[in-house]
Amino acid sequence: MDTSSSTPLDALRQVLKARNLDGWIMPISDPHLSEQVPDHWQSVRWLTGFTGSNAVVCVTEKKAALFTDSRYWIQAEEQLKNTPFQLIKSNGVNTRTPIDWMCSETGKKANIGLAKSLWSVGQIHEFERILLNKPNHSRTLQLVDDVVDLAWTESRPSKPLNVIKPLPGGLGKIETKLNRLRCALDKEKVEAVCLSSLADIAWLLNCRGSDIPNNPVFFSHMLVTKNEAHLYIEPIKLGSSLLTALESHGIQVHRPTYFEQDLRKKAKSHKFIFDPNCQSFAIYEQIYDLPHKKGQAPVLKLKQKKSQDEYRGIRMAMEHDGIALLEFYAELEQRLTNGETVTELDVVQMVDYQRAKCPEFLDNSFQTIAAFGPHAALPHYSPTPETTLPLKDGLLLVDSGGHYLTGTTDITRMSGIGQVSQAMINDVTTVLKGMIALATCVVPVGTSGSQLDTIARQPLWAEGLDFLHGTGHGVGYCLNVHEGPFYISRYATATGTDGLQKHQLVSDEPGVYRKDQWGVRIENLIFSKETLKKSPFDEFLKFEVMTLCPIDTRILNVERLTVKEIDWLNHYHAHVKKVLTNTVLSPRARRWLEERTKPIAKYN
Amino acid sequence: MDTSSSTPLDALRQVLKARNLDGWIMPISDPHLSEQVPDHWQSVRWLTGFTGSNAVVCVTEKKAALFTDSRYWIQAEEQLKNTPFQLIKSNGVNTRTPIDWMCSETGKKANIGLAKSLWSVGQIHEFERILLNKPNHSRTLQLVDDVVDLAWTESRPSKPLNVIKPLPGGLGKIETKLNRLRCALDKEKVEAVCLSSLADIAWLLNCRGSDIPNNPVFFSHMLVTKNEAHLYIEPIKLGSSLLTALESHGIQVHRPTYFEQDLRKKAKSHKFIFDPNCQSFAIYEQIYDLPHKKGQAPVLKLKQKKSQDEYRGIRMAMEHDGIALLEFYAELEQRLTNGETVTELDVVQMVDYQRAKCPEFLDNSFQTIAAFGPHAALPHYSPTPETTLPLKDGLLLVDSGGHYLTGTTDITRMSGIGQVSQAMINDVTTVLKGMIALATCVVPVGTSGSQLDTIARQPLWAEGLDFLHGTGHGVGYCLNVHEGPFYISRYATATGTDGLQKHQLVSDEPGVYRKDQWGVRIENLIFSKETLKKSPFDEFLKFEVMTLCPIDTRILNVERLTVKEIDWLNHYHAHVKKVLTNTVLSPRARRWLEERTKPIAKYN
Repeated sequence: MDTSSSTPLDALRQVLKARNLDGWIMPISDPHLSEQVPDHWQSVRWLTGFTGSNAVVCVTEKKAALFTDSRYWIQAEEQLKNTPFQLIKSNGVNTRTPIDWMCSETGKKANIGLAKSLWSVGQIHEFERILLNKPNHSRTLQLVDDVVDLAWTESRPSKPLNVIKPLPGGLGKIETKLNRLRCALDKEKVEAVCLSSLADIAWLLNCRGSDIPNNPVFFSHMLVTKNEAHLYIEPIKLGSSLLTALESHGIQVHRPTYFEQDLRKKAKSHKFIFDPNCQSFAIYEQIYDLPHKKGQAPVLKLKQKKSQDEYRGIRMAMEHDGIALLEFYAELEQRLTNGETVTELDVVQMVDYQRAKCPEFLDNSFQTIAAFGPHAALPHYSPTPETTLPLKDGLLLVDSGGHYLTGTTDITRMSGIGQVSQAMINDVTTVLKGMIALATCVVPVGTSGSQLDTIARQPLWAEGLDFLHGTGHGVGYCLNVHEGPFYISRYATATGTDGLQKHQLVSDEPGVYRKDQWGVRIENLIFSKETLKKSPFDEFLKFEVMTLCPIDTRILNVERLTVKEIDWLNHYHAHVKKVLTNTVLSPRARRWLEERTKPIAKYN
Repeated sequence: MDTSSSTPLDALRQVLKARNLDGWIMPISDPHLSEQVPDHWQSVRWLTGFTGSNAVVCVTEKKAALFTDSRYWIQAEEQLKNTPFQLIKSNGVNTRTPIDWMCSETGKKANIGLAKSLWSVGQIHEFERILLNKPNHSRTLQLVDDVVDLAWTESRPSKPLNVIKPLPGGLGKIETKLNRLRCALDKEKVEAVCLSSLADIAWLLNCRGSDIPNNPVFFSHMLVTKNEAHLYIEPIKLGSSLLTALESHGIQVHRPTYFEQDLRKKAKSHKFIFDPNCQSFAIYEQIYDLPHKKGQAPVLKLKQKKSQDEYRGIRMAMEHDGIALLEFYAELEQRLTNGETVTELDVVQMVDYQRAKCPEFLDNSFQTIAAFGPHAALPHYSPTPETTLPLKDGLLLVDSGGHYLTGTTDITRMSGIGQVSQAMINDVTTVLKGMIALATCVVPVGTSGSQLDTIARQPLWAEGLDFLHGTGHGVGYCLNVHEGPFYISRYATATGTDGLQKHQLVSDEPGVYRKDQWGVRIENLIFSKETLKKSPFDEFLKFEVMTLCPIDTRILNVERLTVKEIDWLNHYHAHVKKVLTNTVLSPRARRWLEERTKPIAKYN
């Protein structure tokens, strides 16, 4: 098909017409339903120009729309200007869905297409449910191969084929993890599981790759039964020594082309557990007609609970990260003091450079956010050459993180540059109070993410402030910086075994965003532990703050902090100083650490 | 049937056998699914001797069991001792259900009977769901007339026939309320509603009765369509003047015997809204095969949002209640100072006497709880001649409330009698901190009961304490002291329009219970209002504390209170003093008010 002279949207519409599809709904997704998606599958970006990480695009013969969440509303307005794509703001509950849009934009007998490899079964069922509830029509959903493969034929990035490596600790951990997984299968009374989430596979094999930017995973599938473990992967990614090593640990390695037929074959003799929220319809197609059990992917909870080794590793990673940030902030302050012009992109470059100096560093855990002034009101803004602002009189927000061989980090800090208003300082103070409230709370085992969310928001609500994103997310061990299933948000109501457990690593990141003015977010990673005090009432958890980096006390209204909050801040800074002062630091960074960890006086 | 020589359980089993029923599951309920149930329907008490307000009893040919929630575990253990009834502790989630019990105690083909007039449709469906999920059996649920009517033939209390009266404000309010109800029906796109909840009918007609102890309602049914309103009631309850008055306000009055056939007739020509959680299977039987819509009973939310008149009325009721409590506490302290022996039952008698002196008083809003020492560890203990303890060295918990012509109250206060330990004082202080946390919070409109619950529990969790009951419930306007649908509990996750709205009256009552030692609960009623400050982020609510009665500062560890908490306490006491000092009080009560509202010094 000749698409050379047409836009991507024209090309897509031609394919849809040829396939007799009246509409097409596409997510930002890959066949593993990864949160961060490699260029090869960035078809929403190719089609619309929108560069955010979450969107659903709807296309009909005449109309086109892009749905995205509140993080990206302002950015999407910019990027969709002068395109045929209408922006639809979605916000969790009670908002218009892509199906609603399709029903208003297509005829009553429309065929609406979806790529079966890019949607979870849960999403498909939700779409079907909404469609069934619409009266008087006969529209249908068609689950087909991705039509983008036919439309996007020119300059499409290729699939990643990078080499993978074992983590420190090595392949010996595979047996332990396989045992834990098989115990979980036993508990669920099933005999096998298909792993398609790349993070699950990387966790199980204790190996990491670089197939996805900011996400040290590698493309592959696995089938695990009670006696066997099969890995489907391009041989070039392993090399012969790792191949042999994996085989010596009981992993049978195959080419990816065998995956679907092997899955079908195994499913005929083994009862699989299948997680409709984590696996694509393309995989479901292989087993839906065979006996299977629907349930949560069993690796999720195993991975979420960090081991003692991982806890120790995370502490090391936090030290590496703290050193990088000290060096960055000391350099930034010196350059500003020298009267240099520093832009947002300079900040990104400086932060990324400092992290990359660490021998244990693998990759950023997400694209570094350096947002100055009004840009910080966009929670997920990243500067580009077109947008980068020089830092001058206002608040700088830096949200960044790294994958180290022993853990993943995610941190946000605020800095005051030049003149900072009292209103800005008040917002920083309020957000800090929310962050401390969550970091210092004690809650029963099994507390829901919604309950924890309330604790962080209370100090903000008291000032008439709020923010639209969640308060926190799980963080992987040298894996996804957003690791489920537990998260902290008003919508996260699951309690009990699906609520907070001990030994989880989560972020604590309340914020305040004032459109076109400024934005504030302060973020630490916190680790859930049992409280020492035994109680006859419940088993209780508290948090240990893992992140090691000073919080700038020069932009706080100390009079608005309670004695307890000031104690927390002084104790935190003493701890940061104690740990980082024993590391290798430049004299400049050492002076900065010394200065920025000084206790503040208690307000009376 | 001659049941004179047999126990109630024997009599019930004879009837079950005659009806070919292998099991029987019975609740504490009446045909209106009232929370408080008149003696005529107190068949669980008749059968088992258990006097709590919540239980489900299961009976088979050989076995019998009683399920009740944590409030009653200790009491039920006592009362079921030496009976054939096994106590089964139920606790909200993941506990054994009556159906589970029935399945383990009956044969695979058992017929399990349920009284169709005493169970909501929602409960029946839940039972059916559990039963259907059990493998390999053919047990069935039989919905039948209440077999207790045949078994309980001797000394059964008669149905109540008390006279009803309009509230101040009179019947003129009926038109306004009917309008609001009909607007709600329009919104739901239905044409009629059957009111079977007695509180809904009393609210709509602005009348009150005395058919149920502690609940100023009257037995009746109503059918409301867009043009008509029909009341089904025994004529003796109205008298001729109220009958004429109701008719002049557009209410057509009929004898109760016509209710079911009229419902069926109206349902043939009008689309009804039907709330499966609030209406019995007996009512559902009349309409299930006709077009209807399932949805929340529309009066619930109308009733929950208090009007400005009601708000003013509640403030007056709180003054009456405050005066009664001042008089009671002043008398109690004098009697104890005089060296008199005072027992729990004396306390009940004194409190009830003081409330009843008020001309606007109608009834207690629930049975007064006076619990001393270890008895206070039973959250719903009420003293009896057998259990009543003299007050000596320990904590006294008094939880009581009244229905006044202008509102309903519910208050719990703690008193220290003689020697009180530091551990007791610590618990009182912690519970007070939880109570203040909820009373002073600011939350967005639509916040869930689970989020609010978290706010009250945080200070308790911080000390390793917790309690099993909810933190709060809605309170009616001279109506049910427990008024749904909104409540404050870890299980109450509904947000948005089902979350907290402005102008709701709710209780704020955290507690701590140490089995066999002591119990603490402090309770105020609080009223949700918009905050004055406008915010660009959300619409926010705060609470006004409505209850007017000093909190005993002699049993507080003031050093553990924050400056903010001490400010709140001093401000609250100044307010209580200011309002109540202008009322008619005995010199003794006036002195007590003066003394007990003195500000406490701030801890530094």
